Amino acid sequence: MSVFGGIETGGSKWRFAVGTGPDDVRAAETIPTTTPTETIDRAVEFFERAGPVDAVGIGSFGPVDRNVRSPTWGQITTTPKPGWAHTVVGPEIRRRLSVPVAFDTDVNAAALGEHRWGAAQDVDTFCYITVGTGIGGGGMAGGKLLHGLAHPEFGHVRIPHDRDRDPFAGVCPYHGDCWEGLASGRAIEARWGRAATDLADNDAVWELEAHYLALGLVSVICILSPERIILGGGVMTAPDFLLRVHREVKELLGGYLESPAVGDGIGGYITLPRLGSRSGVLGAIALASLDGAI
Amino acid sequence: MSVFGGIETGGSKWRFAVGTGPDDVRAAETIPTTTPTETIDRAVEFFERAGPVDAVGIGSFGPVDRNVRSPTWGQITTTPKPGWAHTVVGPEIRRRLSVPVAFDTDVNAAALGEHRWGAAQDVDTFCYITVGTGIGGGGMAGGKLLHGLAHPEFGHVRIPHDRDRDPFAGVCPYHGDCWEGLASGRAIEARWGRAATDLADNDAVWELEAHYLALGLVSVICILSPERIILGGGVMTAPDFLLRVHREVKELLGGYLESPAVGDGIGGYITLPRLGSRSGVLGAIALASLDGAI
Repeated sequence: MSVFGGIETGGSKWRFAVGTGPDDVRAAETIPTTTPTETIDRAVEFFERAGPVDAVGIGSFGPVDRNVRSPTWGQITTTPKPGWAHTVVGPEIRRRLSVPVAFDTDVNAAALGEHRWGAAQDVDTFCYITVGTGIGGGGMAGGKLLHGLAHPEFGHVRIPHDRDRDPFAGVCPYHGDCWEGLASGRAIEARWGRAATDLADNDAVWELEAHYLALGLVSVICILSPERIILGGGVMTAPDFLLRVHREVKELLGGYLESPAVGDGIGGYITLPRLGSRSGVLGAIALASLDGAI
Repeated sequence: MSVFGGIETGGSKWRFAVGTGPDDVRAAETIPTTTPTETIDRAVEFFERAGPVDAVGIGSFGPVDRNVRSPTWGQITTTPKPGWAHTVVGPEIRRRLSVPVAFDTDVNAAALGEHRWGAAQDVDTFCYITVGTGIGGGGMAGGKLLHGLAHPEFGHVRIPHDRDRDPFAGVCPYHGDCWEGLASGRAIEARWGRAATDLADNDAVWELEAHYLALGLVSVICILSPERIILGGGVMTAPDFLLRVHREVKELLGGYLESPAVGDGIGGYITLPRLGSRSGVLGAIALASLDGAI
């Protein structure tokens, strides 16, 4: 039986694992993201130590080039993260470990992990959205990972923004007050002057945050018609916050969609990841097991 | 070789055709939508006259139930159109013509038509959006028609609405100023006091309309990452209007997506349907030819 390696590359940390699934993780490690050279070196060292593996899957922060016919396949492309634009990740891992590599976004990897072992096992059109430092989304439609022109960039949808209620201009360097610009962890910190984790008791923070999150979720629901929405990322760990999001989404939809999923059943419709913080790295292992590794 | 029937049910007219594709339409008719009984009777009479056909495809205004395992399959469900809520269309056509019937949304049918014979032949993740009396959207992801929880309801995404610039409250009975509420043909008429076709020379109308349309298109682009967007419907026939939409979408994306499709290539990315007003009824014929007819 094949053994796979998984890498989740994040803007603040990278996670590595070797195994075949959540019940068979043979080695795992999490390191802080430093420079591209040092971080990739540590990934290679981990797999040299913990391997061998038959293939490696990489779920990466982005934007990324995941088109296997492109000369820049396997790169993190235009990220604003200092020093990381156009970092060659996939080909470098493949060259140094001499194994096939599958490369996709972190959120598509997490979606795949939840589909195989977690909260999306019974559906084939769904999305995984991370609400952390930024906002990103991936998922499946008809059982296939969402690709297309490039890959989804959920964080950059525009949402209504009542500047009388909230004059905050938003933090997105491209769009100011897009979804990520208003509702990401970075936006919360800029808006309220403290990190989300230090604001747990501040009701106004979570009321406004639930409103912004729900506005974007309504767009996701209307455009993709997902059978389930999984919300991961640090912001979602705030106590009781998911319940506020449920209420806001129901109110915004206003009864237009008759499905019980967005009515009394919304608790099962918009859920947290069942694999917790391991969705991405386990999903990367799942990615390595697909035919797409090259 | 099989011959198929296609029905596009619209809120104001129904189109029928018999044939195998755009170059082989053996009979076609368009009638005004009156009562459910009379309109369905006329559909049956058309196929009795122009048939026989091996199967019928129906692309319907909605919301619809297209789940073949549902007891209400083939119904137009909660439409606000007077007299039409819960109209049984698919089963009635099947019973009276004794042929298998495939049933989907009008916009998914149009998308399928454009995929087989029109502007989406070379892509497999794209959408077809109609901007007419209302706004609806369908399409494919990875070569499969978009379904999911039910079907997409593009028209009800929320978009930013600057009430200082435009105090108009929107026409959606559920959400007021959602995308359809602000940017549909009905919204234009309510906002400016005349039908869109009588406003061709009014620059302010089309500037605002392009802005609203583009805001929703940005959501579609960020969530679905389509390889192409086809814009049908009466509003899109306004002279030079598509060029305004192109400009607005580019400006709103602000260079964030590096693809030439949303840069200099946007003329080929956001396009009109190649089958013109026949996308829906030809798509219904294509629908009838798929395995899904029951």
